[in-house]
Amino acid sequence: MRMVDLIDKKRDGEALTKEEIRWVIDGYTNGTIPDYQMAALSMAIYFKDMNKEERAELTLAMAESGDMIDLSAIKGVKVDKHSTGGVGDKTTIALAPLVASVGVPVAKMSGRGLGHTGGTIDKLEAIPGFSVEMDTDTFLKQVNEQRLALAGQTGNLTPADKKLYSLRDVTGTVNSTPLIASSIMSKKIASGADAIVLDVKCGSGAFMKTLDHAVELAEAMVEIGSSVGRETMAVISDMSQPLGRAVGNALEVKEAFAVLKGEGPADVRELCLVLGSHMVYLAKRAESVQAARQLLEEAIQNGDALEKLKAFIASQGGDPSVVENPAQMPQASEQIAVSAQKAGYIKEIAADKIGTAAMQLGAGRATKEDQIDLAVGLVLEKKTGDYVEEGETLATLFANEQGIEEARKLVEQAYHIVDEKVEQPTLIYKEIYGQ
Amino acid sequence: MRMVDLIDKKRDGEALTKEEIRWVIDGYTNGTIPDYQMAALSMAIYFKDMNKEERAELTLAMAESGDMIDLSAIKGVKVDKHSTGGVGDKTTIALAPLVASVGVPVAKMSGRGLGHTGGTIDKLEAIPGFSVEMDTDTFLKQVNEQRLALAGQTGNLTPADKKLYSLRDVTGTVNSTPLIASSIMSKKIASGADAIVLDVKCGSGAFMKTLDHAVELAEAMVEIGSSVGRETMAVISDMSQPLGRAVGNALEVKEAFAVLKGEGPADVRELCLVLGSHMVYLAKRAESVQAARQLLEEAIQNGDALEKLKAFIASQGGDPSVVENPAQMPQASEQIAVSAQKAGYIKEIAADKIGTAAMQLGAGRATKEDQIDLAVGLVLEKKTGDYVEEGETLATLFANEQGIEEARKLVEQAYHIVDEKVEQPTLIYKEIYGQ
Repeated sequence: MRMVDLIDKKRDGEALTKEEIRWVIDGYTNGTIPDYQMAALSMAIYFKDMNKEERAELTLAMAESGDMIDLSAIKGVKVDKHSTGGVGDKTTIALAPLVASVGVPVAKMSGRGLGHTGGTIDKLEAIPGFSVEMDTDTFLKQVNEQRLALAGQTGNLTPADKKLYSLRDVTGTVNSTPLIASSIMSKKIASGADAIVLDVKCGSGAFMKTLDHAVELAEAMVEIGSSVGRETMAVISDMSQPLGRAVGNALEVKEAFAVLKGEGPADVRELCLVLGSHMVYLAKRAESVQAARQLLEEAIQNGDALEKLKAFIASQGGDPSVVENPAQMPQASEQIAVSAQKAGYIKEIAADKIGTAAMQLGAGRATKEDQIDLAVGLVLEKKTGDYVEEGETLATLFANEQGIEEARKLVEQAYHIVDEKVEQPTLIYKEIYGQ
Repeated sequence: MRMVDLIDKKRDGEALTKEEIRWVIDGYTNGTIPDYQMAALSMAIYFKDMNKEERAELTLAMAESGDMIDLSAIKGVKVDKHSTGGVGDKTTIALAPLVASVGVPVAKMSGRGLGHTGGTIDKLEAIPGFSVEMDTDTFLKQVNEQRLALAGQTGNLTPADKKLYSLRDVTGTVNSTPLIASSIMSKKIASGADAIVLDVKCGSGAFMKTLDHAVELAEAMVEIGSSVGRETMAVISDMSQPLGRAVGNALEVKEAFAVLKGEGPADVRELCLVLGSHMVYLAKRAESVQAARQLLEEAIQNGDALEKLKAFIASQGGDPSVVENPAQMPQASEQIAVSAQKAGYIKEIAADKIGTAAMQLGAGRATKEDQIDLAVGLVLEKKTGDYVEEGETLATLFANEQGIEEARKLVEQAYHIVDEKVEQPTLIYKEIYGQ
């Protein structure tokens, strides 16, 4: 087989065979296929797409390019959740104990990553004593006993995807549905999930700006999941403004706690219930999605979810009293109000600008070496559809000296205030199921 | 400027600015832009094309990436000819003395290259004593005195094109009109031509298989030439069968001599007259293409062209008596007839198979290190449209032991014999002029 012939074939719009796709991914992973040929093939895929069989095989080949996590020692259907990423998304922190509290096994491995705030692991490390370091046996045992464990990613997971993603990032081939979908799904499959619930964000603060694009990606991932024997569904949720009110690590953890107390912003609570009820249903812990939702609402009401959260924190070395007293987490030295410069209705809150503001305050990492300040971030006092008086607070910055002026400016720019009444945006645009 | 932004821009169908194209070619030449980004850009160009201004700038940027040959010391308009390559194309060997004999200065620099036979330089080295080694002063002086010199390519000509061509060759991006056209034209411009006549081959034995593709490439090159101030025209000529009868180095030289004696195959003679008359006209040595052709026909008839050939050979250290006695050139030890296995009309002679047959006999190079056997090759006794009896000779192999059986099989496969009468193919499909 010659790589140049496969590039020609894809360039001319033909489908690659399973054998050809395996050969490409194996060769690229072990270095016998150079970056320049993989870049040309990626651009050809950008223009000529891949069919259902090609996408499934690419996903499996990338998943199997490194370690495959074996969760078979865990009893029950292991359901994983993945979000395509947005601003203020603390869903996992509330969702994992919530579904675990009704008996769904949650065996979560998370990375740290770059972004306007840290990843789930970074956020949870705002809890005093909390640790994600544990060996595999402990991890599996904890899931079997507690229904919930969260570990830092170790080992050599999907090296083909890591290498290909780095290449796509510098060759104009990131924005390709088959390549995005196979990248995400390969990681989920290598992580050992039996079933997958996807939260595809849509709007100005998300990678997918339009509903059409979000649906295209969601359908692609659901189809891949079905093709490779993992029951998969996707929820398309709004990212035209940040999710909830808190953006920043400790601030988001506190908001996630609130949801499990039956408090917290309605949108975070609703998204947790929607995603959670699909997870419970796919895990076969309820007869219907409706019944699953009922279980989850009860678990919040009767305190089971909150108890599960505390037990989870304790089992990972953290102090569970933080749940009742979030002030034990790192606190910013200053709170600065950003006020409305005119009265009116909030038409839009540009999520990307809010994310950058959090970043400026020190909540995120631009490079792997950056240190995160877990205390800082901001809380949105007004959200889309709200009315604001001139001089009233739009958002509160939680700062430790760094980046205050930059953040204030970004927040002012992010809020778009108009005279006419504005409707609240839809939270859940669509739910997409496999065949 | 960031390369990934320029890749995105081209991928999305936008035109790159002059400044951007320069930056890309400079960066790629000096190694600050890596192969994988250039491969992605090339594939984006394959799909999204380049407009007139982009093509012109790419050509100039590649021409100026290395040495630019200065022919200003030569009096008159320097017209260069370029052929896109085919089987049996010995045109330059007859054409150069022919147009020089009517006063057109021909300052030719040639490479060796890979292929089924050697390049023009290799072919001429079949002449005893002939050498292409000369310094620049001698070269320029010889053109001024003799109107004709041929030197081997020295120096660092179009390094950007060399590097890009090698990359395109392994990334499925060879077959892109803007990239082919700029590659060819950059070399002609760096070689110092004032005006350019292009011979674009079309048919099964050529890179361009269809007339539409050949016209597209020809128009692209003519447009580039006009854009950068070099008067350029193109002839689309037939390569549905080999040109002339001889294929192989010494054999082709002999056939070129014959043309200047007023003999030789009609197609080689006609192509020389067509290309030559355009060269003479562009060099302003005649009022019209028609008048130019008249001059060339006279130069063949009155022996001027043959005299110019002899003087040229002598001035490059060769023995001019070879023209009257071509047997002084290397001779093959065996002549083997390949016979028709049935009677009928020759419908087609697959030029690529004939080329491979010559290669098997040792006439060409597959790698730079291969030695060429200047004596071997083949002569086609029958051409398209001819009638052949069963057992009659189709072609004669000139061999030195090597590759005889392989060559015989290839020749048998190349000839397609049918019962119905067949027309001779058109030699010149089209002539394309600049604005």
